[in-house]
Amino acid sequence: MPSKSPVIIDLKFIPQEVEDGLKGAFSGREVINLADPAHKGRDLSGIAYAVVWKSAPDLFSRAPDLKVVFSGGAGVDHVLTLPGLPDVPLVRFVDRSLTTRMSEWVVMNCLLHLRQHRAYEARAKAHVWEDLSQPEAAEITVGVMGLGVLGQDAIRKLGVIGFQTIGWSRSKKEIDGVETFAGAELGAFLARTDFLVGLLPLTDETRGIFNAAVFSKLRRGSPLGAPVFINGGRGGSQVEADILAALQSGVLGGASLDVFEQEPLAKDSPFWDMDNVYVTPHVAASSDVKALFSHVEQQINRFESGLSLQHLVDRKAGY
Amino acid sequence: MPSKSPVIIDLKFIPQEVEDGLKGAFSGREVINLADPAHKGRDLSGIAYAVVWKSAPDLFSRAPDLKVVFSGGAGVDHVLTLPGLPDVPLVRFVDRSLTTRMSEWVVMNCLLHLRQHRAYEARAKAHVWEDLSQPEAAEITVGVMGLGVLGQDAIRKLGVIGFQTIGWSRSKKEIDGVETFAGAELGAFLARTDFLVGLLPLTDETRGIFNAAVFSKLRRGSPLGAPVFINGGRGGSQVEADILAALQSGVLGGASLDVFEQEPLAKDSPFWDMDNVYVTPHVAASSDVKALFSHVEQQINRFESGLSLQHLVDRKAGY
Ligand SMILES: NC(=O)c1ccc[n+]([C@@H]2O[C@H](COP(=O)([O-])OP(=O)(O)OC[C@H]3O[C@@H](n4cnc5c(N)ncnc54)[C@H](OP(=O)(O)O)[C@@H]3O)[C@@H](O)[C@H]2O)c1
Ligand SMILES: NC(=O)c1ccc[n+]([C@@H]2O[C@H](COP(=O)([O-])OP(=O)(O)OC[C@H]3O[C@@H](n4cnc5c(N)ncnc54)[C@H](OP(=O)(O)O)[C@@H]3O)[C@@H](O)[C@H]2O)c1
Repeated sequence: MPSKSPVIIDLKFIPQEVEDGLKGAFSGREVINLADPAHKGRDLSGIAYAVVWKSAPDLFSRAPDLKVVFSGGAGVDHVLTLPGLPDVPLVRFVDRSLTTRMSEWVVMNCLLHLRQHRAYEARAKAHVWEDLSQPEAAEITVGVMGLGVLGQDAIRKLGVIGFQTIGWSRSKKEIDGVETFAGAELGAFLARTDFLVGLLPLTDETRGIFNAAVFSKLRRGSPLGAPVFINGGRGGSQVEADILAALQSGVLGGASLDVFEQEPLAKDSPFWDMDNVYVTPHVAASSDVKALFSHVEQQINRFESGLSLQHLVDRKAGY
Repeated sequence: MPSKSPVIIDLKFIPQEVEDGLKGAFSGREVINLADPAHKGRDLSGIAYAVVWKSAPDLFSRAPDLKVVFSGGAGVDHVLTLPGLPDVPLVRFVDRSLTTRMSEWVVMNCLLHLRQHRAYEARAKAHVWEDLSQPEAAEITVGVMGLGVLGQDAIRKLGVIGFQTIGWSRSKKEIDGVETFAGAELGAFLARTDFLVGLLPLTDETRGIFNAAVFSKLRRGSPLGAPVFINGGRGGSQVEADILAALQSGVLGGASLDVFEQEPLAKDSPFWDMDNVYVTPHVAASSDVKALFSHVEQQINRFESGLSLQHLVDRKAGY
C-alpha cells in the first residue's frame, strides 16, 4: 500500500486553535502546517491535499500536484482568486457549528437593532432611566439575501424569534412560512424589507450588490424609522462608500458589518465609531477547526475510496 | 339595562402610548384615565374595574367598590403590596406580544454574553481588528429560574438558537428537550448552569433569592470563564450588593439587569458603568397597551356574562 499523501494546512486562523485542532487529526498522515517556521521553504511537490484560508499567493506554485483543495470556510472567493489554482475539485466547509454560529450573529444583530440597544447604552452611560417606544419583532420584516445553508438556518431562527421573514436567492426556494423571491424579483423583495441581511457568497454577480440603488429601494416607514443593513456574507458584495452615505443621509438607520471590502478594516475607517453601526472583525461564523479537520478527513476518505466528494464548489457559478 | 361601569386606568407607562391605546377601546363604557388632570380628585366610588400599573397608594381608598382589579403587566407584586387591596379577583396580563418581547430580551442578552459583545465593542472603540476564541451556544448551559408563561417561551427559543437549556420552578414541569428541576433540586440545577436567567415573580419565597449563596453554586469552567446572571423578572428577587460583590470578585463574569431593587435605578449606582453589565430600565417586556385593553375588555365581558375570569392570581402564592 503506498503511503498516504500528507496534508498541507495553510489557515490564517487563531494559530493556537489550529495547533490544538491538529492534535489527533489526520492519523496516519503527515501534516504540514505552514504556520510552523520549520516548513519554510519546504518542497511541497507530490502532495495531494491542502486546507486553505487566505493562503499566501505562492501556494499553488509551491504545491503543483494537489488533487483536492479544501476551503477552511464556507466561502471560496479567497481560493478562487488565488493565482495558479489548479483545475481540481474544490470542496467548501459546511458544518452544523458554522451554521449555528452565523445564525447566532444574525439573530443577535437583528435584536440589537430591534431593541434599540445603542440608544439604551447611551442612556446607561448617562445614568438615565428612560423607556423608549418599542415595536415587537412581528412589526419588522427581515429580508435575507442568500438562501443557502446559512441563509435558510438564519431565516428559520429569525422566524422563531418572531420577525416577519422574506428571502431572495438566485433560484427560487420553497421555505415553510417564508415568502421567497428569486433573481429579477429583487425590487419587490426590497420594497418589503426593513432589515436587510446579506448572506451571499462573493461572485462576479454579487460583487457590489449592496449599493445605493439597493438601499434606496428598502421599505421606509417601519416603526423604527429607517431600514437597517446587516452583512455577514462578504465585504466585496458591499459598496462601503454607499453604506456610509446612506447612514449619513438617513437612507439607512443602522448597520451591522462583519465583513469589509478590505480586511482588516482600516484603522481610520469611519465605521468603527458610527452611532448605530456594529463592527465585528469577520467573526460571525468562525470555523471550528476540529470540525473542519474531521470534515476534511471524511472527504479525503471518500476520495481515496473512489466515492464522490461532497460540498463541491461550482467554479463557473463561483460558489 | 343598567349602564356599564366605567373603567379606571392608572398606568405608569409612556403617557402617549396609553392615550393612543385608549382610542376606540372600551366602547360603550366611560374611561377614567387618572393621568388626565381633569380627573384629579374625582369621586371613584361605585366603579367596578381598574387597570393598574404602579398605582398611587390611595387608589383603593378612592375606589372602594372595585369588583375586579387588572394588572397592567404580567407581574402583580406592585398590586399585592398596595394598601387596602380589596378581596376581589385580581387578573394579570398574559399576552403573546408580551411573551415574545421578553424572549427577545432574554435571547439577545444571552447572545450578547456568548458573543463577547462588550469585548468587541471595546476593540471597535480602539479601532482594533482582533478575533477572540468563540465558543458556540451548544457549549453553554442556560438555566432558567421560573418556568411560567415567560420562562417556557424563552427556554424554547434559547434551545432553537442552540443553547443547552435547563429549568427550575416550584412544581415540576415537563418540557420537550429541557431537563427540569423543582423546589429543593435548586443546588443540582445551579451546578449545571453557566448563564442564570431569572423569570420569577416577586413573592415572599422569591424575595432575595438571587444572592451570594446562589451565585457561588453556579457552574465554573464554562468556555467563557465565569457564569453570568440575567434578570428579567423582578428586582426584589435580587440582592444587588451580592451581585456587585460577585462581579467584582469574579464569581460572576457578567450580568444583564432589567429590574432593580429600587426603580428607577439610582443615578449613582455602579451598575450603569460596569464593564460586562447591561442595564435596561425595566423594558424587557413592556405591555402592548392595545393588547392590554382588549384583554381587559374580554375579561370584563366574561365577568359580566357570568363566565369565569382567566389568568387569575393565586393571592396566597403571590403570583
Ligand atoms: N462572516 C463570516 O464569518 C462568514 C462565515 C461563513 C460564511 N460566510 C459567507 O456566507 C456565504 C454564504 O454561505 P452558505 O454556506 O449559505 O452558501 P451557499 O449554501 O452556497 O448559499 C449561497 C446562497 O446565495 C445565493 N446566491 C448566490 N449567488 C447569487 C446571485 N447572483 N443572486 C442571488 N442569489 C445568489 C444562492 O442562490 P441559490 O440557492 O439559487 O444557489 C444561495 O441561496 C459564504 O459564501 C461566505 O462568503 C461568512
Ligand atoms: N421585566 C419586565 O419587563 C417584565 C415583564 C413581564 C413580566 N415580568 C416578570 O416576570 C414574571 C414571570 O412572569 P410569567 O408570566 O412567566 O409568570 P407565571 O406564568 O406565573 O410563572 C411564574 C413561574 O415562576 C415559578 N415560581 C414562582 N414562585 C416560585 C418559587 N417560590 N420557587 C420556584 N419557582 C417559583 C412558577 O412555578 P410553578 O410553575 O410551579 O407555578 C412559574 O414557573 C412576572 O411575575 C413579572 O414579575 C417582568
